Formats: sequence, C-alpha cells, structure tokens
Amino acid sequence: MTDRSAGSRRTRQLRTARLEAFSDGVFAIAITLLVLELAVPIAGTQGLLTAAREEWPSYLAYAISFATVGAFWLAHSTISEYLTSADPIFVRLNLVLLFVISFLPFPTKVVATYVHQERAERVAVTIYGVTVLVGLLLILGLWQYALRAGLVQVDVGEIDERLLTRRMVPAAVAYALLLVLGLLAPTSAALGYLAVAVFLIFPFGAVRAHRGDAGDGERGAS
Amino acid sequence: MTDRSAGSRRTRQLRTARLEAFSDGVFAIAITLLVLELAVPIAGTQGLLTAAREEWPSYLAYAISFATVGAFWLAHSTISEYLTSADPIFVRLNLVLLFVISFLPFPTKVVATYVHQERAERVAVTIYGVTVLVGLLLILGLWQYALRAGLVQVDVGEIDERLLTRRMVPAAVAYALLLVLGLLAPTSAALGYLAVAVFLIFPFGAVRAHRGDAGDGERGAS
Amino acid sequence: MTDRSAGSRRTRQLRTARLEAFSDGVFAIAITLLVLELAVPIAGTQGLLTAAREEWPSYLAYAISFATVGAFWLAHSTISEYLTSADPIFVRLNLVLLFVISFLPFPTKVVATYVHQERAERVAVTIYGVTVLVGLLLILGLWQYALRAGLVQVDVGEIDERLLTRRMVPAAVAYALLLVLGLLAPTSAALGYLAVAVFLIFPFGAVRAHRGDAGDGERGAS
Amino acid sequence: MTDRSAGSRRTRQLRTARLEAFSDGVFAIAITLLVLELAVPIAGTQGLLTAAREEWPSYLAYAISFATVGAFWLAHSTISEYLTSADPIFVRLNLVLLFVISFLPFPTKVVATYVHQERAERVAVTIYGVTVLVGLLLILGLWQYALRAGLVQVDVGEIDERLLTRRMVPAAVAYALLLVLGLLAPTSAALGYLAVAVFLIFPFGAVRAHRGDAGDGERGAS
Repeated sequence: MTDRSAGSRRTRQLRTARLEAFSDGVFAIAITLLVLELAVPIAGTQGLLTAAREEWPSYLAYAISFATVGAFWLAHSTISEYLTSADPIFVRLNLVLLFVISFLPFPTKVVATYVHQERAERVAVTIYGVTVLVGLLLILGLWQYALRAGLVQVDVGEIDERLLTRRMVPAAVAYALLLVLGLLAPTSAALGYLAVAVFLIFPFGAVRAHRGDAGDGERGAS
Repeated sequence: MTDRSAGSRRTRQLRTARLEAFSDGVFAIAITLLVLELAVPIAGTQGLLTAAREEWPSYLAYAISFATVGAFWLAHSTISEYLTSADPIFVRLNLVLLFVISFLPFPTKVVATYVHQERAERVAVTIYGVTVLVGLLLILGLWQYALRAGLVQVDVGEIDERLLTRRMVPAAVAYALLLVLGLLAPTSAALGYLAVAVFLIFPFGAVRAHRGDAGDGERGAS
Repeated sequence: MTDRSAGSRRTRQLRTARLEAFSDGVFAIAITLLVLELAVPIAGTQGLLTAAREEWPSYLAYAISFATVGAFWLAHSTISEYLTSADPIFVRLNLVLLFVISFLPFPTKVVATYVHQERAERVAVTIYGVTVLVGLLLILGLWQYALRAGLVQVDVGEIDERLLTRRMVPAAVAYALLLVLGLLAPTSAALGYLAVAVFLIFPFGAVRAHRGDAGDGERGAS
Repeated sequence: MTDRSAGSRRTRQLRTARLEAFSDGVFAIAITLLVLELAVPIAGTQGLLTAAREEWPSYLAYAISFATVGAFWLAHSTISEYLTSADPIFVRLNLVLLFVISFLPFPTKVVATYVHQERAERVAVTIYGVTVLVGLLLILGLWQYALRAGLVQVDVGEIDERLLTRRMVPAAVAYALLLVLGLLAPTSAALGYLAVAVFLIFPFGAVRAHRGDAGDGERGAS
C-alpha cells in the first residue's frame, strides 16, 4: 500500500507538473496577447492625447480581460495547489478550460470594436459574457470534480474548500445577471465584468488576517 | 552499476525537464496563437450576429486545430510520463515534431480562407491533412523509438503500451482516409479531422473505469 | 513547529513555483512580442539599407524595451531567489506588475510611431515613461513588501538587501527626471531610458568582485 | 565547506531553474512566432497550389530559421545540462543571447520579402547572416565563460567539452564564409545557413554510438 502510494505520488508530480506548465503557458500567452489588439491611436490634427482618449473602449476591454484572465489564473493555481494527482477526466476538463481562456482575446477584440454601435455592442457584450461565464463554470467544475474524485489533499480544511467556492459561486451568479444587463446597458455590463474580476482577485481573507488573526484559513483565500 | 544509474537518473531529470519545458512552451504557444487568426466580423447592415455566422469556417478551423493540438499534447505528455531518459535521437525527433506543431496555425489559416472556393479548398484541406498526419506519425515514431531505445520505465504494463498505440494507429489510418475524402468532399473531411481529435482526447478508458474496475490500465488511457 | 515549517516549505515550493512559472511566461512573451512590431522596411529606389536606416526609431524603441523588460526580469528573479513563500497580497501585487510588463509593447509601439512628430512624440514618451516608472515602483514595492511580511530567507545579508534597493531607488529617481526631460527633449529622454536599463542590468558588483574579493556580497548584485 | 557547497547547490537550483525557464520561454516563443509571418497565398486564376509554390522563399526562410533556433536551443540546453551554478555575468551574457534569438524573426521576414530583388536580397541575407553569427558566437562565449568561471560540473569529460566546441567552431567559420558568399550569391548562402543548422542538429555522435560503442562520450554529442 505504501509502495503504491509512493509510486502514485511520483506519477502525480510528473503528471500535475506538466499539466501546470502547459496551463501556465496558455494563461500567460493569452494574458500577454491581449496587448497586441491595442492599435496605435492615429494622431491627426487633434493631437495624440485626444486620439488616445477616443480609444478608451480598447483600453477598457484590455483591462477587463487582463483582470479576468488574472482572476481565473489565481483560482486555477489555488486549485492546483491542493491537487495531489490528476486523472484522465481532470486533464480533459482542464483542456476545455484552456480552450475558453485562449479564446478570450477574440471576444475582447469584438467588444472593443463595437462599443459605440448600439445593436452590435449588445451582441458583442453577450458573446463576451457567455465566454467568461463558461470559463468560470469550468473552473468551478474542475474544483468540484477534483474534490469528488479524491484528487485533493486530505487536509484541505473545510474553510479552505468553502472559501474557494464562496468566491466563485457569487461570481457566476453575477456573470449570469450581467448577461441580462448586457442586453439593456452593454457598457455598464462591461464595467460589471471588471468589478467581478476585481472581486475574484481581491484578497479579502488576507486583509482580514492582517487585522484580526485568521491564521491558516488564509491559505484558501489566496 | 548503481552509481551509473544514479548518475543517469540525475542527467535524466535535467534533460527531460528542459525537453518538456520547451515542448510545453511550443504546444502552448501554437494552441494560443490560433486565436489571432480569428478576424473581427464586419457588421454592416445585416448586424453583427449574421456577420459572425458567416465567419463559421474560421471558427470551425480554429476548433479543429485547437482540438488537434490538444490531442497531440495529451499524447506527448503521456509519452513523457513514462520516459526515464532522453537520448540525442529522441531529442531531434521531438524537435521535428515541434516543427510540425508550430506550423499548424498556417494550414489552419489557409483552410479558413478557402472554405468556399471549391478547387482551392481541396488543396487547402489536403495541406492540412498532410500536416496532421505527419504530426501523428511523428508522435507514434517518438513512442516506438522510446520503447526500442529503452528510454521508458521498465514497469510500463503491456496494457498501457498498447493503449497508447491503440489510439494512435486507428487515428493515423483515419487521417489517411480523410486525405482521400478531402479531394472529394473537403468540408466533410474537415469535420472528420475534428472527430479524430475528439476520439484521441476522449477518455474512453477512464469512463470504462468509472463503470467497471479497469484499475491500473487507466493510466495508459490518459 | 518543525512540522508546520516543513509543511509551509512544501506549500512554498508549490506556490512560488507556479508564481515564477507564470511570471517567467509573461516576461518571456512580452520581451519576444516586441519584435513583431518591427515592420519590414520598404526598399524603393533608395535601396534596402537606406530604407532600414530610416526606421531607426523602431529599432531604438525595440532595444530600449528589450533592455527594460530584461532589467525588470533580472530584478524579479533576484527577488524570487530570496523568497521562501508567497502570501495572497504578494501574489496580487505581482499580478499588477505583470499587467504593466505585458502592457509595455503598446507604449513602445506608440513611441516608435511618433518619433518624428514633435508634439505627439512628447505625449508618447511621457506615456512610455509613466509605464516604466510604475513598473519599477511595483518591483520595489514587491521587494519591500516581501521583506516586511517575512517572506524572505532569514539569511539575506544586509548587503544583499541594500544592493537590490541601491540599484532600484536611483533608477526610479532617474525615471522621474526623464519624465520631465521627455517634455523638453523626448529623443534624449528615450536614450535616457536605455541608459537606466543598462545601469540596472550591468553587473557592477560582479566586476568589482573579479578585481577585488567581494565574496558572498556578490549574490545580491546579480 | 560541505555546508557552503550545499547552500550554493540550493542557490544553484533556484537560479539556473529560472534562467532555464525564461530562456526556454524565449526560445519557444521565437521559434513559434516564425509561423505568423507566413502569409496565406492569394489564389487567383492560377490556383492555390501555384500561388503557394510562388511563396517558396517564405517557406524556405521559415525552415532555415526554425532549424537555426532549434540548433541554438539544443546547444543552449546542452550547456545548461552541465551547469552547476550561474553567476551575474553568465546571466547577463545569456540575456544578450536571448536578445539575438528573439530578434531573429525580423531578419527572417526581411529575407523572405526581398528574395527576388537582387540588390536588396544581398543586404537582407547579410543582416540575417550577421544575426546568426553573433548568436552562435554568444553561445560559444557562454560555454567558454562557464568553463573558465567554474560554473560547470567537475566531471565534464574532456571529450564532452571538446564535442560541444568541435561543433560550434566550424559552424561559426561556415557562417563567416556564408556572409561573404551572401554578397555574391544570396540564395545559395541562404541554403548554406540551412545546412549549418542541420549540421548543428544532426546527432553524429549518437549515430556513431549506435554502430560502434562510443559510450559516455555520447552525452556531449547531444
């Protein structure tokens, strides 16, 4: 028994190491490619600063997507921190998640292009919203699957487990609401997506810990 | 003897670690670059949604190539899981494979461009088919070479060994048939390439294991 | 106590390993994407060499940004070398830094575009200067935070600690001065940014060590 | 003494690990970005296949640069295999090398553009040749510096050491000759660069070992 568990631990390290390396690669590339969509503003008679200011939708879309991919990476790295092994189904679920992550630069580009065209903007923001919602649900699914399939360290405190879920479930609900809002007020919805990403990133637990004494429960909050 | 094997084990870790890191990098970049080819649909009078719908060949080509690179990465990571060392020839074969992987975004772009032009589409789909067939044969060759050159863990069960081959040989045959089909019905052939990638990715063994009790044989199925 | 510290050390390796892998990915991609902005010079009647010479602002901007991202990566890797663990706040600060790093190709492109248009050039160089100043302040902040939050090895010699700060504080001051200079003489300011990057990269300590005998203090100078 | 060496070994692993991860990232991105320069051939009346055939200079330039970056990566990974530590100067030299590697897609693009314009082609091939020559000299310099600064395992056999040099010195001489040839017959010079890359990649030692019994000397040949 000990022999087998030692063997599986070795397998684990190989397996999750490559899973993480590949995932980190895709996350890092997707987050860095976003900048390629920012076009140099054309400074005509009105000057570069004015021209740049008119390009604000691109910058906003860039910031939203950077924050979203960053938040998803944080959640993903927190999950992988607790992972003791990966099984075939987990690896495939992860591949589907990476599909969504690497796709995100496209809806970002579409939103930035159509911000000022009311009807098209609604479609663009809806495509964007569906993409991030699916992404978040896949991360949640990955975490739930890992818990049920026993891929996770035995000593994950209940607090930690709940903290991860406690972040992502309200975010998913917010994404669903923003999908509806996007049909009425697409620009506000875009700001909403930024707010959710900041909520996912912000280290509430850590701040509390600095004030009080939350101790080990902190780890889950990261 | 033990001394030498300890030394080679150390070498192994260095060597295969960089081999994997570099390979993961190329796979991750190739799979993420695909999204750059998706152009923002031009919403004229007909609306963004209609415009986007007309771009379906790009999206299909994107999905096919993502699935294919994903499937190849899975096969590659399964091989490297069993690897105990890498020799000069293995490293070079791997470099040729990475050449094909990093080339794939190009035929993808060509297929997406020429979907509606019958004659050109045939040429495009054939170039695509040759690329993925060569890629698959190289992965198979990598695996066969690793087995013969003794680069693989002694305890790879026969089941595992066969499982990897059992996946890739029919896929290679399917690719060869799709090459012929591509001359007659290029769009159907494109869908065939998607089907093969899904076949390569789908965790049959794992599903079986959840129902029955396939046990250790599972590892090979991943 | 020993048990806990052993556990946290294990957590540490997981945590900082992914933090470093993701950071290295973003740094490597940002530094390599810069080359995509270099357009092929159009050789008309005057020949390719003359055409290429006229494109010098692009090449200069490319070299400045490569040196700057390289210098920031060096500082970042030196910090992470001393890191024994990462906490939620450190991870978020790092994410903000990566935001700035991955954004840098954009101001680089803007500077290269507007070098010969006096008014626009000032705006461009100012945007560039603000970006690199914020980047440097974030690295300094990361280092200060790591020191205060106790994330750093106990045996960081005072010399090492000061060496890192001794490099970055004057660089930050120089960046602030170059921001002002950029309003008067933007091209000179651009050269100033290159000089600061070279100053950050140049291994003063190491050179001194080769002459005299600086010993362990060297490590901090890297 | 043992204490210090243990400590430096720990430092080593941190230091060279990030050095390798960052280097692998830049190599992997540079080699994969090359494909972005391949434009979809425009199939007019003459058909896609004829159009694609006319684009052969792009494909050739792509293949040459892929092989060259691949060869340089092989040499780099062989060096890092023997590395026991990295010092400040080694890290900076490596950064300069990465500058050249990440720059290579640009001369590749220039060569592909000007293949059929005699005068411009000469300039383009010369720029290309200078870039790869500088790159190779930097790798050689890195290796020589590592040997002299004692950054290399004590048990590097003389054979191994010579093998690495024995490959790179003739390649550097060939590059210098190709620079001259490029002024007279630029297309032949381009094929020469491909030949040198293949020479650098080809596992001569390994082939010999399979026939005879070269034994441990093999490692250096990789």
